[in-house]
Amino acid sequence: MSNPSLLILAGDGIGPEVMNEVKKIIGWYGEKRDLAFDVEEDLVGGIAFDTHGTPLTDATMEKAQNADAVLLGAVGGPKYDTLDFSQKPERGLLRLRKEMDLYANLRPAQCFDALADFSSLKRDVVAGLDIVIVRELTSGVYFGEPRGVHKEGNERVGINTQRYTESEIARVARSAFELARRRNNKVCSMEKANVMESGVLWREVVTEIHQAEYPDVELSHMYADAGAMQLCRWPKQFDVIVTDNLFGDLLSDAAAMLTGSLGMLPSASLGAPMANGRPKALYEPVHGSAPDIAGQGKANPIACILSFAMALRYSFDQGAEAERLEKAVETVLADGLRTADLLGPEGGSPISTTQMGDAIVAVL
Amino acid sequence: MSNPSLLILAGDGIGPEVMNEVKKIIGWYGEKRDLAFDVEEDLVGGIAFDTHGTPLTDATMEKAQNADAVLLGAVGGPKYDTLDFSQKPERGLLRLRKEMDLYANLRPAQCFDALADFSSLKRDVVAGLDIVIVRELTSGVYFGEPRGVHKEGNERVGINTQRYTESEIARVARSAFELARRRNNKVCSMEKANVMESGVLWREVVTEIHQAEYPDVELSHMYADAGAMQLCRWPKQFDVIVTDNLFGDLLSDAAAMLTGSLGMLPSASLGAPMANGRPKALYEPVHGSAPDIAGQGKANPIACILSFAMALRYSFDQGAEAERLEKAVETVLADGLRTADLLGPEGGSPISTTQMGDAIVAVL
Ligand SMILES: CC(C)[C@H](C(=O)O)[C@@H](O)C(=O)O
Ligand SMILES: CC(C)[C@H](C(=O)O)[C@@H](O)C(=O)O
Repeated sequence: MSNPSLLILAGDGIGPEVMNEVKKIIGWYGEKRDLAFDVEEDLVGGIAFDTHGTPLTDATMEKAQNADAVLLGAVGGPKYDTLDFSQKPERGLLRLRKEMDLYANLRPAQCFDALADFSSLKRDVVAGLDIVIVRELTSGVYFGEPRGVHKEGNERVGINTQRYTESEIARVARSAFELARRRNNKVCSMEKANVMESGVLWREVVTEIHQAEYPDVELSHMYADAGAMQLCRWPKQFDVIVTDNLFGDLLSDAAAMLTGSLGMLPSASLGAPMANGRPKALYEPVHGSAPDIAGQGKANPIACILSFAMALRYSFDQGAEAERLEKAVETVLADGLRTADLLGPEGGSPISTTQMGDAIVAVL
Repeated sequence: MSNPSLLILAGDGIGPEVMNEVKKIIGWYGEKRDLAFDVEEDLVGGIAFDTHGTPLTDATMEKAQNADAVLLGAVGGPKYDTLDFSQKPERGLLRLRKEMDLYANLRPAQCFDALADFSSLKRDVVAGLDIVIVRELTSGVYFGEPRGVHKEGNERVGINTQRYTESEIARVARSAFELARRRNNKVCSMEKANVMESGVLWREVVTEIHQAEYPDVELSHMYADAGAMQLCRWPKQFDVIVTDNLFGDLLSDAAAMLTGSLGMLPSASLGAPMANGRPKALYEPVHGSAPDIAGQGKANPIACILSFAMALRYSFDQGAEAERLEKAVETVLADGLRTADLLGPEGGSPISTTQMGDAIVAVL
């Protein structure tokens, strides 16, 4: 039997640096745990535009469709700010999400005990925090038509369309309920049903799926603005949050911040099962390409490494190995090792991206 | 010359309770400072629906159009959750905003020193915080057409439209730049120009207005997700934030939470100048109708009282009197008086809504 295949798309900015450390981890699993992967690498984002004139070629898209899992670094950078909308680095990532139909984006916000003091929130508000935001990722205002900027009389007008179908809402709701069953059995659904009809439908469909298929899970609803507030006030009230593409974008970034550093947080974007039973899947850190520190060896590779741990769990059914990797990260943090982003105002001496990766391999 | 006119729409839930305390303050200004107002009261929201079968009658709308300023309490409650979308209490408020064309919603997030320890954020992150979010209030996805839930084949589909014209963006940008000039001269504009064309136009227009009319103000741009994150991480980096209707809804609630209690935060919604030179204006607390504590005398009237202070400043050119009122609130807090929402986990004995109002009048 051939090895499972991984497509690595390191992308822009700090993407390649953090992905290098993931490659070390992948190497370790092949050598020491007999868990070898066939790894292929390709381009996405600004670097793909620089090389091929498009943020994602059809050939790369094809490879992603056929890979057992895709690992992505980050896309974007100020260099590409003036590019036409359709050529922006982000379009490459959005095309992957859309064409692979990765509708459920799992974003855990977990606070590592060693870092609890590093949050801008008080220790007791965040210590032990462990919630997951399930963000719808293939629809909503990110993809709805009509869209664009056009002229009406003398004026430019910018338009985007928030559009959700019943089945789009139902499938991501199921992902959230399934996940909740394996956790603390609580789902909070967030929308703006008080002002948006798409939110009214969202609430209705989530309620219907709940009643028909998951009556054992505790379900609550919250307006997204109140949700943003409650995340800042008392995040531990939540277990699984399910929300749409745009709200999920904002709420997961806010939740990420609670934990102290965006440099720590992984994500998994999952679609329907493929012929081999594995879900279509893309794993990426929640952080962006951080152009300000790119190429300086300062970036924290942990979010990208933990994204690989999620791949072990969700794509390759290696939950125990995923835990081994997560534990190794915890150990390294407990030992006081810190990349620059994990140092508080008191300072301390940061280690480099490579040193962090090596330290994690050493613990493994 | 006749007195300036105030239309009071206390609304639902805790609205009437907190507004009662504002009426005491208004009374005090009439008696002691020779600043008398002609006050009229009417209904909005659920109570208007209960009485007239609509969340805002045409007659009330007419009164609001003619008042020198409108003071609003809060709308909404679980009792109205099952109402048809067009009859929901929120539609009354949204109609006021839209038909009065109140395009600039000013939401200060200020941290009172006496309350800095009460925030879920660390003291040094929030102490002294003083920022203003300027939220566009009459357009975007709240009002864009087409909208609604319809059937496509067997499926329900929910649609809303995010739509911004150049002039809608330009006028709220001007409000933000003007405000920044009277503060610390810094504006940060937030959108999702990386994924939404309406955000691309937003960024372009804000940049154009800046270059042509306000080159002296410092302007930066941030994606709204990064903005949510930065608000939780280091809110003091901001002075004035300008953003669209929906992002403003979420971001201002998150910002509000930073300050420790939503029960403290006022807002002003301003439109174009009327014939008498005053802007069309509606003042309301950022908090909602809080049905869970309504009618118990527990609500904090300060947000509503500070909204009246904003009315003194922005509608009636009484900046000194506004400051007097704001100082009175600070004094009362410094004296340790607290409504229930302002007590930390350590507890303490809360005072009632009425006692808080009386204490502020006493300090005045
Ligand atoms: C890079 C960008 C297109 C993306 C998004 O808006 O979804 C990012 O912010 C994210 O959250 O993954
Ligand atoms: C009550 C509701 C319609 C309103 C909004 O969404 O604008 C509220 O959340 C606000 O922020 O004023």
